[in-house]
Amino acid sequence: MTKRSSLPRGVAVVGAGMCKFGAFPEKSSRDLFVEAFQELVKSVDKGFDPLSIETVYVGNYSGELFEGQGHLAPLMVDAIGLTPRPAVRVEDACASGGVAFRQGVMAVASGMYDSVLVGGVEKMTNLPTAQVTDALGTAADTLFENPAGFTFPGFYAAIATAYMHKYGMTPQHLMKVTLKNHENGALNPKAQFNVSIPGWMKGRVDAAIKKGKPVPTWQTVWDFLQDDAANPMIAWPLRLFDCSPVTDGAAAVLLVPAERAHEYTDAPLYVIGTGQASDVALHSRADLTTLNAARAASLTAYEMAGVTANDIRIAEVHDCFTIAEVVASEDLGFFAPGDGFRMADEGVTSRLGPKPINTSGGLKSKGHPVGASGVAQIIEVWKQMRGEAGERQVPGGVPLALTHNVGATGTTCVVNIFERR
Amino acid sequence: MTKRSSLPRGVAVVGAGMCKFGAFPEKSSRDLFVEAFQELVKSVDKGFDPLSIETVYVGNYSGELFEGQGHLAPLMVDAIGLTPRPAVRVEDACASGGVAFRQGVMAVASGMYDSVLVGGVEKMTNLPTAQVTDALGTAADTLFENPAGFTFPGFYAAIATAYMHKYGMTPQHLMKVTLKNHENGALNPKAQFNVSIPGWMKGRVDAAIKKGKPVPTWQTVWDFLQDDAANPMIAWPLRLFDCSPVTDGAAAVLLVPAERAHEYTDAPLYVIGTGQASDVALHSRADLTTLNAARAASLTAYEMAGVTANDIRIAEVHDCFTIAEVVASEDLGFFAPGDGFRMADEGVTSRLGPKPINTSGGLKSKGHPVGASGVAQIIEVWKQMRGEAGERQVPGGVPLALTHNVGATGTTCVVNIFERR
Repeated sequence: MTKRSSLPRGVAVVGAGMCKFGAFPEKSSRDLFVEAFQELVKSVDKGFDPLSIETVYVGNYSGELFEGQGHLAPLMVDAIGLTPRPAVRVEDACASGGVAFRQGVMAVASGMYDSVLVGGVEKMTNLPTAQVTDALGTAADTLFENPAGFTFPGFYAAIATAYMHKYGMTPQHLMKVTLKNHENGALNPKAQFNVSIPGWMKGRVDAAIKKGKPVPTWQTVWDFLQDDAANPMIAWPLRLFDCSPVTDGAAAVLLVPAERAHEYTDAPLYVIGTGQASDVALHSRADLTTLNAARAASLTAYEMAGVTANDIRIAEVHDCFTIAEVVASEDLGFFAPGDGFRMADEGVTSRLGPKPINTSGGLKSKGHPVGASGVAQIIEVWKQMRGEAGERQVPGGVPLALTHNVGATGTTCVVNIFERR
Repeated sequence: MTKRSSLPRGVAVVGAGMCKFGAFPEKSSRDLFVEAFQELVKSVDKGFDPLSIETVYVGNYSGELFEGQGHLAPLMVDAIGLTPRPAVRVEDACASGGVAFRQGVMAVASGMYDSVLVGGVEKMTNLPTAQVTDALGTAADTLFENPAGFTFPGFYAAIATAYMHKYGMTPQHLMKVTLKNHENGALNPKAQFNVSIPGWMKGRVDAAIKKGKPVPTWQTVWDFLQDDAANPMIAWPLRLFDCSPVTDGAAAVLLVPAERAHEYTDAPLYVIGTGQASDVALHSRADLTTLNAARAASLTAYEMAGVTANDIRIAEVHDCFTIAEVVASEDLGFFAPGDGFRMADEGVTSRLGPKPINTSGGLKSKGHPVGASGVAQIIEVWKQMRGEAGERQVPGGVPLALTHNVGATGTTCVVNIFERR
């Protein structure tokens, strides 16, 4: 494949917003999208006329299956008052948001547009969980994989098992990822579960006392995370707290040409690298402990950006399951193969460590409205790079950050790299 | 909205292929996609290495609902041996193919890619027709329109009724569109119904004789088209033969930078204009007799191309229903509002008329695999502009052609303009 070292026209993020993530039975996808857009409008430091937006991309995995609504893009554009702007829905399973962002980057880089809105949205919680699992399952290879009984917890359990076998990781190592991401999410008011594991435990104890029920006897987080009642096994070795939740949510960012960024803000994020790759379905792969698409996408993005994995200060990675974060930290070149779980164990990836991963709380704690997640990763990068992440702010400044968004079992991966100058 | 007069980097179509359209119970979407791709590979005059393709766009409306398969793009890329190329599914209901094409144009224009495959695919016929109608219905506004009982034949019947009331058209005028498109489709071996209406009638008569059943007594096509048994009412004034069919099919084109087109062929098509627009859902519009999105998209495309409606030699327009072709012929500026049905009646839009529309047979006769239709329109333009349309070749050369692809009731419209130099 021909590779180029830079975009023909620079692209910058100058606005970003997201709604609170969670379960909102009374809200439709358009309500969520409007909330994210309204926050975006306020986020533009020097103000701007929303009607100057020229085209809109919407990342969405399956409005059809989750909400019975296809053709979502023009409806979202109508909801935010931007009809007749072109409206394009982009779908690559759980990478839909990140891929939509990348299309927005191309739209600006192509010279066709000077103001592009990229949103992601998913409305998932109105269906029973089993139906959500089935809907998500259509992102796999339904001719060859689903008939064998696989759903996504099973796929990632297979990845975890292969990884444990190859590198000696234990299920307890994965719990360190859970603990870290909930610790971060506890500091993120937009997170679906903005509570640490100790906080969660305390909440359960308090509730039991209040209701006069038997009080749980967990002494440590390890007691809690290994309690089959509190943290049931979903697909061995993955327990409930290894899995990201079912979430309603939306996020949106505003893209403009780099040379015009300062009309909007003195603190833009420059998109200096973007890469995307596909892979064969999981059952066809020789090695389950790495995602080829993540490696390929990150190499493309690093090459375009002219940076290396070492240069990245923080990363938001696709932790749909805890094992996915471990594998991602290796695929992105942060750590050598087999070192990812040790680095998580040693706190290297914690918020105050040398390589913070998922300071937002990740999909695990922030929530995973699938089509929105790739865009929501960029919201966190926006806040951290601009020093607006509040209690969870990474110290010392964030000049370079990366987002890593995966579709299905890595059949799609998209990586974007951002710079604050 | 800022408008620009041309793409920063020219884009050309240098290959095109489609599978036979029809009902193929034994084929999956990937089978159809592979067939279209194989024909595309053969179509490149000077040959090329398929592995030189750098990225892939897939227009698909609802693999989830039609086939239980989401995340279609990387599966298609795997099926044609192009993993790990980036694979993006684009969805804008029945405009998915045309919008995917437009994204491919941007990918080349952005300078990020020098070889882009755009495919469209839909596998619809394995579901009962009522379920297909419901699945298509999710392209409307499901909060406000579907609960009122509308499905797509009803929407377009409302458009037809409003048009009849305003301009004095009769249902018989619409039958002229049916007759023309089946006449054209009879000359298109890839068409699902490659048979004229007289041919259809003869087939029915012959079959009845063969089976010893009562022989139909239609004397003219008008007898046939107004026979409630042969051509039943679907949603007044639209009968069966006013509606495009349910179809399995795929189509694909290859895009490269204009300056490299001659490495592939001496007869490329240059993409000189592209426009897209959205609209509010049908129930919110003041006037049902025109699609604002089609008007806006075509104005953008004409402006970019620097041409007018009069300059267009042929057009493939989105005749999901006969009335849609009449309205399109006005929205595109070919005829004044209220003149479209008269022009169809007078043969102006017939293959040998001054403004041929849907020489392929249109969605009506060629078939309408929704996510593929926008790309398949470009296949017809490719053939006509290169003088390869065989029996249905428009005489005198086709220097400029246009495609018009609509999503839902015109909530999305995309228009592309092509030139042969």
